[in-house]
Amino acid sequence: MKDKIGIVGAGLVGSLLAVILKKKGFQVQVFEKRSDPRKSSVDAGRSINLALSHRGIQPLKLAGVYETIAPFLIPMKGRMMHDETGKLTFQPYGKEGQFINSVSRAQLNQLLIESAEEAGVEVLFDHKCVDIDFDSNIISFENESSFNCDLIVGTDGAFSAVRKKLQFTDRFNFSQHYIEHGYKELCINPKNGEFGLEPNYLHIWPRGNFMLIALPNNDKTFTCTLFFPFEGSPSFEELTGKAEVEAFFTKYFRDAKTHMPDITDQYFNNPTSSLITTKCEPWHKNRTILLGDAAHAIVPFYGQGMNSGFEDVRLFIEMAESENWDWKKVLPDYSAKRKKDADAISELALYNFIEMRDHVGDPNFLKRKKLEAQIQERYPKEWIPLYSMVTFSNMPYSEALRLGKIQKKIMDDVLENEASEINLPEIIERFNTLKRGG
Amino acid sequence: MKDKIGIVGAGLVGSLLAVILKKKGFQVQVFEKRSDPRKSSVDAGRSINLALSHRGIQPLKLAGVYETIAPFLIPMKGRMMHDETGKLTFQPYGKEGQFINSVSRAQLNQLLIESAEEAGVEVLFDHKCVDIDFDSNIISFENESSFNCDLIVGTDGAFSAVRKKLQFTDRFNFSQHYIEHGYKELCINPKNGEFGLEPNYLHIWPRGNFMLIALPNNDKTFTCTLFFPFEGSPSFEELTGKAEVEAFFTKYFRDAKTHMPDITDQYFNNPTSSLITTKCEPWHKNRTILLGDAAHAIVPFYGQGMNSGFEDVRLFIEMAESENWDWKKVLPDYSAKRKKDADAISELALYNFIEMRDHVGDPNFLKRKKLEAQIQERYPKEWIPLYSMVTFSNMPYSEALRLGKIQKKIMDDVLENEASEINLPEIIERFNTLKRGG
Repeated sequence: MKDKIGIVGAGLVGSLLAVILKKKGFQVQVFEKRSDPRKSSVDAGRSINLALSHRGIQPLKLAGVYETIAPFLIPMKGRMMHDETGKLTFQPYGKEGQFINSVSRAQLNQLLIESAEEAGVEVLFDHKCVDIDFDSNIISFENESSFNCDLIVGTDGAFSAVRKKLQFTDRFNFSQHYIEHGYKELCINPKNGEFGLEPNYLHIWPRGNFMLIALPNNDKTFTCTLFFPFEGSPSFEELTGKAEVEAFFTKYFRDAKTHMPDITDQYFNNPTSSLITTKCEPWHKNRTILLGDAAHAIVPFYGQGMNSGFEDVRLFIEMAESENWDWKKVLPDYSAKRKKDADAISELALYNFIEMRDHVGDPNFLKRKKLEAQIQERYPKEWIPLYSMVTFSNMPYSEALRLGKIQKKIMDDVLENEASEINLPEIIERFNTLKRGG
Repeated sequence: MKDKIGIVGAGLVGSLLAVILKKKGFQVQVFEKRSDPRKSSVDAGRSINLALSHRGIQPLKLAGVYETIAPFLIPMKGRMMHDETGKLTFQPYGKEGQFINSVSRAQLNQLLIESAEEAGVEVLFDHKCVDIDFDSNIISFENESSFNCDLIVGTDGAFSAVRKKLQFTDRFNFSQHYIEHGYKELCINPKNGEFGLEPNYLHIWPRGNFMLIALPNNDKTFTCTLFFPFEGSPSFEELTGKAEVEAFFTKYFRDAKTHMPDITDQYFNNPTSSLITTKCEPWHKNRTILLGDAAHAIVPFYGQGMNSGFEDVRLFIEMAESENWDWKKVLPDYSAKRKKDADAISELALYNFIEMRDHVGDPNFLKRKKLEAQIQERYPKEWIPLYSMVTFSNMPYSEALRLGKIQKKIMDDVLENEASEINLPEIIERFNTLKRGG
């Protein structure tokens, strides 16, 4: 097991993969176009914190780095909704004791890079990939160096240079789609040295076609993100002056605004970024493969971008191990098995934006959540809500999506016939029948 | 009207556009990455002949070049189907006197380039576009020259360099999708100095999941194209030796094979090419716009690739003229109006592959065609078959697609109730109601 593995991209997925492969005995080099984050500042415009959940935690444990990371996590037990008057409503994410974790992207990335280096991985910064020779497995860099590897892994994110090279090979399917909303990050500073909002929640201000969310950070700040249409009314295009921004936040996010006295400065100083979904197929060519966002970039609304990337790593390693590191077999097998799940989480992430910004404030949606909680309480093993299947299990995303669609259909039917009594055994029987494909 | 217009790509669409814009009084330069086709040989692997129909003829007339091209056209009145035993069945394309025209791509391109030069257009060969500055409207070339234009038009085909630059700008949606079939061109030589098959037809050998077609050329040859899966059985992958190729053609294309005694040599000497669909949006950025395949490459099965590209030119010119050549207005207006039609012909082209390779040999399909001919004969103004709307009219493709779907639904219903008598007035009334959105 002396294969030389070149990983393009020292982001979250690339550095986690490097740790594991190194510990498995491979020679591992990671090439990163940016400078060492420990010596320079973080990219602007990338999301500052992320939500780590079950699928992401397991691979961190597999790499033996979870213990290092755990102290930096802030549990979030559920959604805390803020209506226009500032009234709060709480929706737990799962059962008692289930939560997701707010974590700083930069901090996590740094810990993973350090873990990789400690394990003996060579991480080469300022190495911008400009070419890949898929026949001879050579990666070329802008600094005119080049490396020959036995396996090349592209973990270089949504705008992957490795994927860009693949795109111009024959019979490579690819799509990139931007949604009509962009986002802007804002900051809530601590108040008298304490969190400005309750820390153990993901705060949401759902407003129909747009929303504001806030996740807690270790320094007792909150990172708020405004997801907002680029055009139309209201939209980024429309808010051109300080007065408009003031009025907008006063109207829609009054309680959040009280925590951001500098809102207009933040609004005009911080960048507006777009949100992309990318899909491609095949993920591999000869001895090169894409993992994480490079293979399947998704919108952030299910909090599964990083988690699905980490799960890619676990599944890739498990398959490689079971196939005795025979890359010629592993690469196509992994892609064939994983592709449908990447497509599923991509679809789920787009759907969850609608749920978060629009439905969570809707009385019908709350009624539905209540019914679902009832079913789950009575049949905890049989009926697991979609959010839990995605967030608190390792069930393939495609299976979660399939079951979620069946659940939705059943609940639509039940809630439509409000007159009739709700018969839980009948519901679960119907679910089990449809689940088996009946 | 002294605007300087730079057109990237001297293919069919680019050179036609150049002729018209020059005649309208603009300064026009065309940049082509290939060498002058009059001084070198044509690209291998690109389709040799095309089917010119109504939508393509009109713009040629608008440019004043149709008379020059007409002598080179070979009318094709309909499909001539060949079954496995060599038995022929004829299906006319439209009414008496309606036909499509086989034309050599290379010849047509050369005539258009010559027309452009005669009109005073400067055509610069060996100019490979490597960069576009969308803010300052500068096109840069591999030979290190660069040109500043008032308007840049990308007509550089399915693998457009202009579009490639757009792809890496923010919020540009793009997809490229390859179908599972590829194609290989073969040649039927003249027999005793005459056409080997009846010349005024598009010959089809429909075989379910694959097919062979043949179009006549002016030199009395036929260009055959085998559309065939890359993988599976049978497939390109499977036909590895001469014996397999011999057996395959004997089994499926016996009569065609008698005209190609050198079939195995041709099969192994000629390239196998893939078939791509591309979509993107927006088609424009500032003062740069994409037309033709660069904006919407489609599969060839409706014979509308060139025709839709030429129609792009007509619609673009018409809109520009009506908006007084105000590019800032023309570019977004043209894109907004045309995009849905490009999507529609893209869908129709994929559908027509299934019709050509599979349905045309099916008795049910022939019954349907017969019924449709009956309706059309009685109601020639009200009921125009889908193929005719696409091929013999200027109706927007999206409208043709919409009406075609209504027609299909009606015919499905009528043919399902075989017992009941066919009531033509009832059919046409239902069609008119649905057409109006009823």
